[in-house]
Amino acid sequence: MERLNKTVVFSLTSNVNLVNNVCKQLGIEPGKVEVKHFSDGETMVEIEESVRGKKVFIVQSTFEPVNDKLMEILIAIDALKRASAGEITAIIPYFGYARQDRKARQRQPITAKLVANLLTVAGANRVVTVDLHTTQIQGFFDFPSDDIPTTSMFANYFFSKKINPDEYVVVSPDHGGTTRARYLAEALGLPMAVIDKRRPRPNVVEVCNVIGDIKGKNCIIVDDICDTAGSLCAGAKILKDNGANRIMCCITHPVLSGRAVELIEESPIEKMIVTDTIPLRERYLTITKKFEVISIADLLSKWIYAIASERPLTEVYTELMAHKK
Amino acid sequence: MERLNKTVVFSLTSNVNLVNNVCKQLGIEPGKVEVKHFSDGETMVEIEESVRGKKVFIVQSTFEPVNDKLMEILIAIDALKRASAGEITAIIPYFGYARQDRKARQRQPITAKLVANLLTVAGANRVVTVDLHTTQIQGFFDFPSDDIPTTSMFANYFFSKKINPDEYVVVSPDHGGTTRARYLAEALGLPMAVIDKRRPRPNVVEVCNVIGDIKGKNCIIVDDICDTAGSLCAGAKILKDNGANRIMCCITHPVLSGRAVELIEESPIEKMIVTDTIPLRERYLTITKKFEVISIADLLSKWIYAIASERPLTEVYTELMAHKK
Amino acid sequence: MERLNKTVVFSLTSNVNLVNNVCKQLGIEPGKVEVKHFSDGETMVEIEESVRGKKVFIVQSTFEPVNDKLMEILIAIDALKRASAGEITAIIPYFGYARQDRKARQRQPITAKLVANLLTVAGANRVVTVDLHTTQIQGFFDFPSDDIPTTSMFANYFFSKKINPDEYVVVSPDHGGTTRARYLAEALGLPMAVIDKRRPRPNVVEVCNVIGDIKGKNCIIVDDICDTAGSLCAGAKILKDNGANRIMCCITHPVLSGRAVELIEESPIEKMIVTDTIPLRERYLTITKKFEVISIADLLSKWIYAIASERPLTEVYTELMAHKK
Amino acid sequence: MERLNKTVVFSLTSNVNLVNNVCKQLGIEPGKVEVKHFSDGETMVEIEESVRGKKVFIVQSTFEPVNDKLMEILIAIDALKRASAGEITAIIPYFGYARQDRKARQRQPITAKLVANLLTVAGANRVVTVDLHTTQIQGFFDFPSDDIPTTSMFANYFFSKKINPDEYVVVSPDHGGTTRARYLAEALGLPMAVIDKRRPRPNVVEVCNVIGDIKGKNCIIVDDICDTAGSLCAGAKILKDNGANRIMCCITHPVLSGRAVELIEESPIEKMIVTDTIPLRERYLTITKKFEVISIADLLSKWIYAIASERPLTEVYTELMAHKK
Amino acid sequence: MERLNKTVVFSLTSNVNLVNNVCKQLGIEPGKVEVKHFSDGETMVEIEESVRGKKVFIVQSTFEPVNDKLMEILIAIDALKRASAGEITAIIPYFGYARQDRKARQRQPITAKLVANLLTVAGANRVVTVDLHTTQIQGFFDFPSDDIPTTSMFANYFFSKKINPDEYVVVSPDHGGTTRARYLAEALGLPMAVIDKRRPRPNVVEVCNVIGDIKGKNCIIVDDICDTAGSLCAGAKILKDNGANRIMCCITHPVLSGRAVELIEESPIEKMIVTDTIPLRERYLTITKKFEVISIADLLSKWIYAIASERPLTEVYTELMAHKK
Amino acid sequence: MERLNKTVVFSLTSNVNLVNNVCKQLGIEPGKVEVKHFSDGETMVEIEESVRGKKVFIVQSTFEPVNDKLMEILIAIDALKRASAGEITAIIPYFGYARQDRKARQRQPITAKLVANLLTVAGANRVVTVDLHTTQIQGFFDFPSDDIPTTSMFANYFFSKKINPDEYVVVSPDHGGTTRARYLAEALGLPMAVIDKRRPRPNVVEVCNVIGDIKGKNCIIVDDICDTAGSLCAGAKILKDNGANRIMCCITHPVLSGRAVELIEESPIEKMIVTDTIPLRERYLTITKKFEVISIADLLSKWIYAIASERPLTEVYTELMAHKK
Repeated sequence: MERLNKTVVFSLTSNVNLVNNVCKQLGIEPGKVEVKHFSDGETMVEIEESVRGKKVFIVQSTFEPVNDKLMEILIAIDALKRASAGEITAIIPYFGYARQDRKARQRQPITAKLVANLLTVAGANRVVTVDLHTTQIQGFFDFPSDDIPTTSMFANYFFSKKINPDEYVVVSPDHGGTTRARYLAEALGLPMAVIDKRRPRPNVVEVCNVIGDIKGKNCIIVDDICDTAGSLCAGAKILKDNGANRIMCCITHPVLSGRAVELIEESPIEKMIVTDTIPLRERYLTITKKFEVISIADLLSKWIYAIASERPLTEVYTELMAHKK
Repeated sequence: MERLNKTVVFSLTSNVNLVNNVCKQLGIEPGKVEVKHFSDGETMVEIEESVRGKKVFIVQSTFEPVNDKLMEILIAIDALKRASAGEITAIIPYFGYARQDRKARQRQPITAKLVANLLTVAGANRVVTVDLHTTQIQGFFDFPSDDIPTTSMFANYFFSKKINPDEYVVVSPDHGGTTRARYLAEALGLPMAVIDKRRPRPNVVEVCNVIGDIKGKNCIIVDDICDTAGSLCAGAKILKDNGANRIMCCITHPVLSGRAVELIEESPIEKMIVTDTIPLRERYLTITKKFEVISIADLLSKWIYAIASERPLTEVYTELMAHKK
Repeated sequence: MERLNKTVVFSLTSNVNLVNNVCKQLGIEPGKVEVKHFSDGETMVEIEESVRGKKVFIVQSTFEPVNDKLMEILIAIDALKRASAGEITAIIPYFGYARQDRKARQRQPITAKLVANLLTVAGANRVVTVDLHTTQIQGFFDFPSDDIPTTSMFANYFFSKKINPDEYVVVSPDHGGTTRARYLAEALGLPMAVIDKRRPRPNVVEVCNVIGDIKGKNCIIVDDICDTAGSLCAGAKILKDNGANRIMCCITHPVLSGRAVELIEESPIEKMIVTDTIPLRERYLTITKKFEVISIADLLSKWIYAIASERPLTEVYTELMAHKK
Repeated sequence: MERLNKTVVFSLTSNVNLVNNVCKQLGIEPGKVEVKHFSDGETMVEIEESVRGKKVFIVQSTFEPVNDKLMEILIAIDALKRASAGEITAIIPYFGYARQDRKARQRQPITAKLVANLLTVAGANRVVTVDLHTTQIQGFFDFPSDDIPTTSMFANYFFSKKINPDEYVVVSPDHGGTTRARYLAEALGLPMAVIDKRRPRPNVVEVCNVIGDIKGKNCIIVDDICDTAGSLCAGAKILKDNGANRIMCCITHPVLSGRAVELIEESPIEKMIVTDTIPLRERYLTITKKFEVISIADLLSKWIYAIASERPLTEVYTELMAHKK
Repeated sequence: MERLNKTVVFSLTSNVNLVNNVCKQLGIEPGKVEVKHFSDGETMVEIEESVRGKKVFIVQSTFEPVNDKLMEILIAIDALKRASAGEITAIIPYFGYARQDRKARQRQPITAKLVANLLTVAGANRVVTVDLHTTQIQGFFDFPSDDIPTTSMFANYFFSKKINPDEYVVVSPDHGGTTRARYLAEALGLPMAVIDKRRPRPNVVEVCNVIGDIKGKNCIIVDDICDTAGSLCAGAKILKDNGANRIMCCITHPVLSGRAVELIEESPIEKMIVTDTIPLRERYLTITKKFEVISIADLLSKWIYAIASERPLTEVYTELMAHKK
Repeated sequence: MERLNKTVVFSLTSNVNLVNNVCKQLGIEPGKVEVKHFSDGETMVEIEESVRGKKVFIVQSTFEPVNDKLMEILIAIDALKRASAGEITAIIPYFGYARQDRKARQRQPITAKLVANLLTVAGANRVVTVDLHTTQIQGFFDFPSDDIPTTSMFANYFFSKKINPDEYVVVSPDHGGTTRARYLAEALGLPMAVIDKRRPRPNVVEVCNVIGDIKGKNCIIVDDICDTAGSLCAGAKILKDNGANRIMCCITHPVLSGRAVELIEESPIEKMIVTDTIPLRERYLTITKKFEVISIADLLSKWIYAIASERPLTEVYTELMAHKK
């Protein structure tokens, strides 16, 4: 990697360590910025170095408190735009509100589209996300948006463990997640199963089956988000009830709201492999030892490098897949 | 229904019969419009009655030739806008390009979003679709968009046949379609099954199973689009191989490209229940007798009436569900 | 007042009582809406009655937590727009971020303008504020914005007390507030004074003087916002030191952050006359008895009535001034 | 010409040979792109090489099937924009719908403006056309648009033939085309004539005269478009009837719809000199030998070179006129 | 005509008498507005009556001083928009800058399009013009624009004079104006002639001929604009030299800059029939008696009536043509 | 300073000398442009050199005739945009209409915002102003806007005179101007005073006092604009009446409308130190000798240099303050 010039990477408040690591890889200092919250709760973002004509990246995931984190980005973009930044890329590893991507009922908002519109009007020129909840959200933007897939990261994790393919199966926690599970299964050369929740007929108790062969296998449940962990832990129990051996989960975004961490500790899940799009709170580590974090820093720095130096991302993709042999 | 005033419903070239029926129900004459194609292939739309200050509805599905049909709408909207129409609602029962709603690979377009942008810049104020391929597409618009569900239509069809619930099962042709299938199953009080295509492990032949109990049952396969009919007919064969009795399909949009109609005639499918969002070509009826068309005219006229008279659609929804008892 | 038809007034979470009172005056029920905060902190707004073609007013002040309150409005507007609301007026009695209306230093954001842009892109058609911090903010919008002045409310308060004009003086807490103070002074027929903070020369302690005759007078300090109350209490002390008799404050927006309420309790201020653009927290009343709240409900309902019935606001203004004789 | 870097020229389906020639002159390979039409008629454009940060040119004339050709451009632009192209120039040598540039009657569309709006919303940054039907269409765009004149090409053709100026006259086929004819007449140092169609008085047969001296002269009729060829052939006959010697036509865009080629073959026109903005169909050459094609490849490559290297087009213009001495 | 309600017609400074007459016909009072010019030359427009929810028409031609007149409209529109006007129609009988509708040379502006953009961004919802210089300018707007033709007015003028059709001919002053001349010729049932200016060959003096039979006839020269009157007077002389009897001119917009009025007085033109889109200056009447003004008041009030009451303009067009029998 | 490349600075008609000086400092030739006013008053701007891909600066103050000057900028920007300028910065040293930055009464325009919108829609990418009347106006733009402060220029003027700080005081002419006055006072290390105009009570004559110690001192009155000079001269008289010694004024923008120059000549003001944002008219110098002009050329060229070479303005600010020691 050559040295990037005319490039600044700013961290706001959500992912400070991640950005430090990314910048270390890129061989640059993180951009100087101060995020303040006034006594009355208003947010202020001060850009403390010149961005005139530069390619600017702001990194911020929008987890809880999601509205504060979102306003920080919007205010930062406004400041950068007025300060003559050359191009502003908002890197939002965890894109909050992604699940509100359609009207489930009449008169509901489509908040994911609203957020896309807010970023646009504030002045963003590009958005980079990680493992976006629905791929259609890229269409909510009219400027370039890149979504970084995490399949290769999780695959590399298991490659490095030299797992025996005969003992493992990748499991989708529901019908909607089969595509995501298939990607990991293919990368790892593993079979796949699906947890099937259906009501055999109306007014009858919901029955949960496992489609595919899991008996005596180690199960790798794959999902993008773990929020309250309710259905994930229920799924794990079903797998166990159906004869699964060890159960592990690959979760890109550990939202972990409410009693999620406690539920996980109490569940048959043995290991939660998560990324640092959302940093784990210190408190969680006192409750459970099950979490293992793998960092997106490497992927992210490759992405920033490609964008800033205007090199094709294809090379990054190719490299990501180099593990497969 | 009171008489609508200051309302015009125009048909372009795709659904002339449908619009005639809708207008009959609404008690109005279809708007006068002429769509011409010049000798050099250019399209011309002439609005032949005043629309000044009126609520205008244009009905046009965008099936093959999709680009011509789309340009007809865009040109019609341009003409209406310049002619001081009060409000322009584009009713696009079959919304073409809906399957290009995300970047499946790098450097692909998101054509469904492009089409939304084209409609917006032309001057549409609202879009109404029928059973949209992905619900996220509503978020591609920044103005109101309504999607008319067809579940109640298909449910009413079977209610009117007084089917015995013990003999029927609703089938989703793949994991992605389980939600759509569940809606119909719930409306009809029927159990549900899913056709599960999975590769038990890499480099092994794909195996197709049926999840759920179908043996000896009549199967109702539910899907929004039937395009080449390849996977639908393959699914029907699997059902048959797994002991299904009769096989029927409920398909909202009969796209039927290539050899679709021939494939259906040769398949174990007994009946194709489709809607008139895309009118069947005369040619098809010489090939097979399996099609049965149920019209969206009633639903559509209720929708137009609610929009034009600014009454809540809730009442329409309530009425739609009145069949259930 | 005739009955308004096709009009809905929604309260979000900030000013529920105020909206109830406004609706009572208008003779309508408050619109049904539910604001939810999910376990992971995301906000959801569900509009629970039809707004198709209606004139919709949403009332929400954006005080602490300001970003949550702002997102509630934006999400509500998105939902209303998609639900075919006829016209959306955002009533933001206390318009947060108003003090960030210019770049005080290089590379700062202009967050008040950003907020105006966010409201615009979300789909608002009009904004109504109360006693906006700087009048230039109206220019941040390209659609109609009305600012309701509170001078007449405060004037009426003192008229109703039948104060003796010889014993009172209106005081501006600094040079920048003289215009606001002059309006009240003129409405009440009172003289005016200004607290003058200047550094007689550099590197010399700041000296605070009072310009105008206050000795033995009851002072009415006028300001739009009381945030930390620091400079207000300092000003009150200066007045006292300069021989003022009783000291009262007319403050439109009681932001009262940090130790503001404690400071006020300890200060020579005798009475804080505030409005309900920001409701006082219960906690404050246990700390001090100095607050007296006058409601903007009457003013606001007149404004809504004029907008919804498309009658000139001039009549409202005229009526507001009817007290003076 | 130095080698252009960071520049890609893509051909869609209309002018593949032209683009190959242009790229040869520029010393670059044509960009890799695939245009597909699915079984159901939907169009797909896949950009098959990186365009990140590059100056991209897409070449596509919009002749029959015009709507398909137009959608190809729009979809390509959407894909390029989302793929972070640096600047997108749509080169549309024949700009279809150009004749629908005004409302000829009430409630007509202005389709040429609609097309300009579609290109804009899709994401084009510049448009280049050749001999645009009306110059006002440039004002339909709010971004730079260049129109390449063909006068010099046609002039060079006749210079190379070393024609005797005493034997030739340039003819405008109607009053509206006199400006275009005058340009060529001036470039060639020739006199000019006009075909004058007027009705001497109402309800009297239209009389066609020729204004200017053509007796015994070789006539060069000049027009931008030859569509059905009806009026062109009629004009040629009038010239012949008025004593013209040989008749040639210089037509920029050979649209040639309906029986145009047959009409030309039967007419007194001896030669049709056309450009390759629209490639001649093979079929035509079996019907007539009258066509002679001169290529815009040279002009176009100079234009692309100037734009891509940010050199003034003035130099191109100067060079174009270098033939005159 | 029924009484219009919720409609206001404002005159700015250009056409006060015209607006008074229009309002008289409509049976309404002209809207109250004050246009001020401050000591430093800045313009101020104060709307002095409520426009909330009303259909507002502002009438202003943009002749000299054109920039001041244009800014008056833009400022008025800004004020109306912020005052919650329901719909703003800018009636610009003489649309200045219309002749700058294309780039005649490289790096020229397209000022007519700029003006369209300025009107749009200021907040106009519709534009009405009279006899626009080029019809393509309507495409510069993306909202409805109506152009009122004056042919019927001029035709009615001559009908009322009961002219003998055998003695008159309509003359176009150049090739470009033949369409406009043809309209009047057809309305009056008269033959047509064209003044043909051509250079028989390069470096030879320009020769002016008259195409068509004018000998002994009374000539009616038709044009939209008379600016410096140079070419109009030259044309009149040519007609006279070719044996014309009396010469009259029908000019919609009497711009009359520089020595135009003096030139006309000295020319063989006998009568200048003009409209009041631009009021004649008092000074002119002391120089010549040749002007005769026919007012557009009747046409304009019909147009406003149709727009404000949302009745089709077709009826107006039909009525306009009722004279022909 | 290195030589700027790909940069052009154009002067329109307002500040030709200033631009010549700026270009001399930058070592470049002023851009070639011709501003024409046609016989009918329409403005034409022709850009006479290539701007393709260049950073373009247009310098034009908008003083009287303000609307003509404003249209010149807008037309120039339109021409530059269409000519593929890379980036267009409008430098408007005196930004006319800045005082119409809010609705002082109902139904007034906010013309300063309108002007911002006009510049935006014409195609400007950045605005640079000098000592803007209200800082909030920067928020009227959504692209970068820089405001060059003049405090350092005026401070340097007095530093160069080596004034004795004990003999001078900086005076704000009213309460609203205290911030501006404080900046100069702090830069010069001087005390500050304020002219206090208040009505001690209603229906009583306004009394003007001076707050702060001015007796025997030389007073430096600071303001941004001197328009009619009425209140400035009145203020000067008050200072004199209160014992001031010499009186000088530092005025950034010498608008000087009406009898301003005569009033100044007759007033106790001894010296008017003004800048060349608005050049003094020759006529003034025959009336009074009190004016002394200091040029913004140096500041402006530093600003242009920083923007064009994408260097931080911080360095310029630092240098500006280097005088203080």
